[in-house]
Amino acid sequence: MSLSPAPPRRPLLTRGSRPLTTTVPAINELGEIVPTQIAGELPLTLYVDKREIVTLMTLGAAPEALAIGWLRNQRLVSSLDDIESVQVDWNVGAVAVKTRKGLVNAEARLGSRTVTTGCGQGTVFGGLMDEIDAIHLPAQRRLSQTTLYALLDAVRLHESIYKLAGAVHGCALGAANSDEGCEILFFNEDVGRHNAVDAIAGQMWLDGLDGGDKVFYTTGRLTSEMVIKTAQMGIPFLVSRSGLTQMGWEIARKIGLTMIGRAQGKHYLLFTGEERFIR
Amino acid sequence: MSLSPAPPRRPLLTRGSRPLTTTVPAINELGEIVPTQIAGELPLTLYVDKREIVTLMTLGAAPEALAIGWLRNQRLVSSLDDIESVQVDWNVGAVAVKTRKGLVNAEARLGSRTVTTGCGQGTVFGGLMDEIDAIHLPAQRRLSQTTLYALLDAVRLHESIYKLAGAVHGCALGAANSDEGCEILFFNEDVGRHNAVDAIAGQMWLDGLDGGDKVFYTTGRLTSEMVIKTAQMGIPFLVSRSGLTQMGWEIARKIGLTMIGRAQGKHYLLFTGEERFIR
Repeated sequence: MSLSPAPPRRPLLTRGSRPLTTTVPAINELGEIVPTQIAGELPLTLYVDKREIVTLMTLGAAPEALAIGWLRNQRLVSSLDDIESVQVDWNVGAVAVKTRKGLVNAEARLGSRTVTTGCGQGTVFGGLMDEIDAIHLPAQRRLSQTTLYALLDAVRLHESIYKLAGAVHGCALGAANSDEGCEILFFNEDVGRHNAVDAIAGQMWLDGLDGGDKVFYTTGRLTSEMVIKTAQMGIPFLVSRSGLTQMGWEIARKIGLTMIGRAQGKHYLLFTGEERFIR
Repeated sequence: MSLSPAPPRRPLLTRGSRPLTTTVPAINELGEIVPTQIAGELPLTLYVDKREIVTLMTLGAAPEALAIGWLRNQRLVSSLDDIESVQVDWNVGAVAVKTRKGLVNAEARLGSRTVTTGCGQGTVFGGLMDEIDAIHLPAQRRLSQTTLYALLDAVRLHESIYKLAGAVHGCALGAANSDEGCEILFFNEDVGRHNAVDAIAGQMWLDGLDGGDKVFYTTGRLTSEMVIKTAQMGIPFLVSRSGLTQMGWEIARKIGLTMIGRAQGKHYLLFTGEERFIR
């Protein structure tokens, strides 16, 4: 899937970002009371054209982008132009999306569910697995080891909530089209790694960004769902600090995704798509 | 919720455990090819009385217990006696459950979904959040620091797949009724931490175990869903190596669960239910 480089018509948006951590008292092994920061987690119920679709548990950092990206990654909306408005109201824990022509194939997609190994969003409505054959990633793109190391450095500086409170996953979208350095375009943390990736998918739409020259980083594990979502965003490079699963590996090979795991500091393991990687 | 100490009628079960890891080649930062073990991840579609309910992505270690525990934790089956048989067939990636009298309140529960921050099983069908008021945990039970340290020691020795391949979560059920030592009754690893907890919930039913004198350990984060599932199993003690989220903390306080996070080696943070903890 490739997006127009020109920013599409932006929907009407609220700015519903929430305070991301809270401090609670804990007692340590010495019996001392230790004020401890913990990550926020709030239910956000998604309504589309007044129909209740799903409740997401989220940190609340980017609820509008999360709602848009969730609809995008579930293939319930095929273009940002189809979204008229996204309104978050934390008083009722709701995000109301108004579309111009309804959801795509809603009954079929919302009918069946796959509970995946995803965090936060461990659900793919509809037969996502059946659609991976339709995915084509740009073959000519390259990622250099220099850019990879720059990405890992940049991510380290971004992880705010994780450092404070833990219990969150971070995702970053980097520009992979330079030989040196790696500009991080967005960084998003959420209590679930799939919220984090979906929020970035939403932001990419809002800014009219194509995935073809990007690299996607996640702190989370490279499971089937993470691989599929990355490919759906048209991003040929997927990098994680964590390990991967067999199905994540198989799907990455099938669709020709360049997948790098166990990436931290100057270490990494390149698992698939080595033809795109320059050491 | 309290279970009869006498083992109930056991359903007819297959023994569908799968090989848990596979080895794939990876290329490291030196350009060396490194054979790397990765965790299995297989789709397992749950059918109840021939009706397709959900597809779980699982490591495949304990598929029968997983299916039973998933139905238990979704409150779709109220007793093991209601389950006549559980048949796993990996050739078609299916587990077929036959009940004696159908699912409890199936239409209502399967109608609404909450996508939670759970891994592997990030979905609670039906309004689980609304039911936490009905949960009562035994107030008189105690967990000593000695038992906690013994549990952490024992868990370290159990983590097999994680050590080999990573990308899995582990859960352990320990006996909390002794002053010293902590016998681990079950240990389960899966690609998602909620698969791991559900498989243990299923095994507890199969062995007719009450949760009241147990301690539940998870490598995963203490999110709302993890807290609720622990309480649903009647277990008053929840221990994790990881951090917690605000909603996990709030629910644990509300239901009086004794929750310990960041537990590793001789360190821990006691967040809630300190009246049950003996230092």
